[in-house]
Amino acid sequence: MLTIIINPKSGVPVYEQIYKFIRKEIETGKIKAGEKLPSKRKLAAHLKVGLVTVETAYGQLLAEGYIRSEPKIGYFAEPIKGLKTRGREYMKDTEITDYPYKTEEKYTYDFKTNTVDTEEFPFATWAKISRKILSENRQGILNPIDFRGLWELRKEIAKYIYSFRGMDVSPEQIIVGAGSEYLISMTVKFLGMEKLYAVENPGYYKIQKIFKSSGVEVRPIGLDKYGILVKDLERSGADVVHVTPSHHFPLGIVMPVKRRLELIEWANIKDGRYIIEDDYDSEFRFSGKPIPALQGLTDSERVIYINTFAKSLTPSIRIGYMVLPKALLEKYNKELYFYSSTVPGFEQYTLAEFMKNGHFERHVSRMRNTYRERQAVLIDAITGGALGGAVEIGGRDAGLHLLLTVKNGMDEKELVESAKKFDTRVYGLSDYYEAGNEIEKNIFPEATVVAGFAGMKSDELKKAVKNLEKAWII
Amino acid sequence: MLTIIINPKSGVPVYEQIYKFIRKEIETGKIKAGEKLPSKRKLAAHLKVGLVTVETAYGQLLAEGYIRSEPKIGYFAEPIKGLKTRGREYMKDTEITDYPYKTEEKYTYDFKTNTVDTEEFPFATWAKISRKILSENRQGILNPIDFRGLWELRKEIAKYIYSFRGMDVSPEQIIVGAGSEYLISMTVKFLGMEKLYAVENPGYYKIQKIFKSSGVEVRPIGLDKYGILVKDLERSGADVVHVTPSHHFPLGIVMPVKRRLELIEWANIKDGRYIIEDDYDSEFRFSGKPIPALQGLTDSERVIYINTFAKSLTPSIRIGYMVLPKALLEKYNKELYFYSSTVPGFEQYTLAEFMKNGHFERHVSRMRNTYRERQAVLIDAITGGALGGAVEIGGRDAGLHLLLTVKNGMDEKELVESAKKFDTRVYGLSDYYEAGNEIEKNIFPEATVVAGFAGMKSDELKKAVKNLEKAWII
Repeated sequence: MLTIIINPKSGVPVYEQIYKFIRKEIETGKIKAGEKLPSKRKLAAHLKVGLVTVETAYGQLLAEGYIRSEPKIGYFAEPIKGLKTRGREYMKDTEITDYPYKTEEKYTYDFKTNTVDTEEFPFATWAKISRKILSENRQGILNPIDFRGLWELRKEIAKYIYSFRGMDVSPEQIIVGAGSEYLISMTVKFLGMEKLYAVENPGYYKIQKIFKSSGVEVRPIGLDKYGILVKDLERSGADVVHVTPSHHFPLGIVMPVKRRLELIEWANIKDGRYIIEDDYDSEFRFSGKPIPALQGLTDSERVIYINTFAKSLTPSIRIGYMVLPKALLEKYNKELYFYSSTVPGFEQYTLAEFMKNGHFERHVSRMRNTYRERQAVLIDAITGGALGGAVEIGGRDAGLHLLLTVKNGMDEKELVESAKKFDTRVYGLSDYYEAGNEIEKNIFPEATVVAGFAGMKSDELKKAVKNLEKAWII
Repeated sequence: MLTIIINPKSGVPVYEQIYKFIRKEIETGKIKAGEKLPSKRKLAAHLKVGLVTVETAYGQLLAEGYIRSEPKIGYFAEPIKGLKTRGREYMKDTEITDYPYKTEEKYTYDFKTNTVDTEEFPFATWAKISRKILSENRQGILNPIDFRGLWELRKEIAKYIYSFRGMDVSPEQIIVGAGSEYLISMTVKFLGMEKLYAVENPGYYKIQKIFKSSGVEVRPIGLDKYGILVKDLERSGADVVHVTPSHHFPLGIVMPVKRRLELIEWANIKDGRYIIEDDYDSEFRFSGKPIPALQGLTDSERVIYINTFAKSLTPSIRIGYMVLPKALLEKYNKELYFYSSTVPGFEQYTLAEFMKNGHFERHVSRMRNTYRERQAVLIDAITGGALGGAVEIGGRDAGLHLLLTVKNGMDEKELVESAKKFDTRVYGLSDYYEAGNEIEKNIFPEATVVAGFAGMKSDELKKAVKNLEKAWII
């Protein structure tokens, strides 16, 4: 008979102690495969516990497959080999280490481009709406959301892009998702894996990686001063092209209407061609009106428009959206309906309300002024100081970064490294180029760095420029 | 000279009226390509507006590429063809239609499986924690989250699965994402597109669709009463298999330890083989302890564990997680770091706090009792009533649905359709089978429906069974 030491004060239920003991005996081979276990009744009597307790223990062993039952004969150990020794279940709670990842190098002044000033985020308003949703819309938060996104939010987005991007689309065409990366990887799922995808070169490094990790072939296409070279695109054999016409990253080109029409013509000319228009920071143009989106320029059904709230609100609110041509809607709804919406209902309701009450529009307008001012401060600090004669500034028309071409004899790498020595981080333009691809040298200025100014306040920008002066000139 | 009618009361800035007028003249060909525009000074005098106003209008036309500037000569219209007539910008706000999608057929009693009882969700506690996070953790909400998920949340998940799933893993191995569908499609990105993926047949229909939409080949593999047939899996040539060992969907099989070890052996035997263990409703086992996960059974580095909070909390909180083998961590971090976390910081902080304070554990334990009771009510209502002699009940061990095999002469389709007539929805088991695949008939009972009971309360379940009696027997 099994001798099981039961500790009634251990806090572990008695049935569980019996179950664990027998399991260990089987795992360690002390009870051999095929061996008959004592009957439930006998074991209960032997251990002086209730029959139900032993029944529960045997039930668990049976459910996990450690023993088998032969009706009217009894219970037998099953042959089990290769199990890990289960000592750990008797251990204390796992000791959890601290956050183990090396954080990136930190600099006091960082001209990074993938950031916004979260201090400027209208958090009080956002929190107020969040609290209201929490109090008043329990069902909205708990019930599943349409896989394409919350209708109320899609309506607000449709109104916004109608007014500010010149796009006349139905909310039906809008798909909400957890950020641009997610949405771009979804485009591959409905445009097709067999297609060839083209990206701008230079361009935002993530785009190419997303396509590649989605398993499709990618061709980097060069640019001239008007944007992507449509002839090179045609020659590449690509079917789908990802572009940033409102504000090219990193060169800052605003694609003129003529090149836009050429690009649309390229897409229209052959079945299955599509343009993915990534409008990532179109909200921030500093003179005149925003340039209307390529999407609304013609009646072409070949443009998929993608935008995100990462730049206009904050990156941690993971909401992006894409606008599908009407002709693709049925395909999307039929083929991808099983991908549930990736954005929680709570955030979707909050953002919808935030937009509906005009907070989003006001915030963007305020941030446009803030960023315009920061851009001006940065330009003034450069041109008015020791760097004045040595730095050429590019990409002023729009967006949250500038290009600084420095004529002090240093190459790009030296510019970046010397700035680091003065606690200031700038980014080499060549980081955004695909190596080995033929590049239009005339638009690839040498000794040029990318300087994002959205993450620093005016006085920080001034101090950062002082550091750059020391690094590059003095 | 251009005659532009300026309406100072329209609310549209004067520069914008000028810009729009000229743009339309160029779009409609009234100003021809190459035609010289009046100088800024002359136009300003002619229209009796400031020079800056005209400069801004010309600047916008220039930025969008409608005109070009020739230094010291003037501005010229560019050749633009194929544009959509821009009448819409003068329209009122888009008329937005109501939600246009047909909602699914509604039945008063719906035995659907992809639902939980949201009324039981501890909303007050969740809302309280949410409010606390909103008040106290502004920076946490606004700052970007590690692409693998919030460290605090990953720690809480590690503790939970240590205690309740027998898994001894570091939080480093845990990746948080916006639901199972997202995480499963991510597995393809790091396991590889060239691999062959296998799924259980029958199985949850989404799984196969996710793999196919991710561009990989899928093989459905049959089951016997212990779960997936490892020999068939071996024969299929598959490299990766998706399984639900804790509670097979829809058959309700709990895979015994022997079959689990065979499966792990299958994976260990050849490089590049992996098991994706989908533990979708493992929290709800109604007798004894939960079955430990396959993941912790051996030291195998070939198991990727996936779970979600959709069943244990509510589907609208889009949080799932996967546990990677240590050997895959470096690959994941190196190859997929550019996919930002898809779950908002706010939800991650809220859930971490919710778990840390024991609310999650208590909720799951309470729901286990609730669902156990509902399962008992459903079984009693069936066996104690008119259906008693005619219905065989399967899948009682675990999970939130039962299988009802009905012996009244009706086939599966008739069972489903006749129930609909009594305002009650059940689901045919064959819906979950891949047609054309050879099936182990012995585990595919005919005339069987799937009845999820998580979405109905006890009294609703009783009424639903009354309806089934009328539909099937009386």
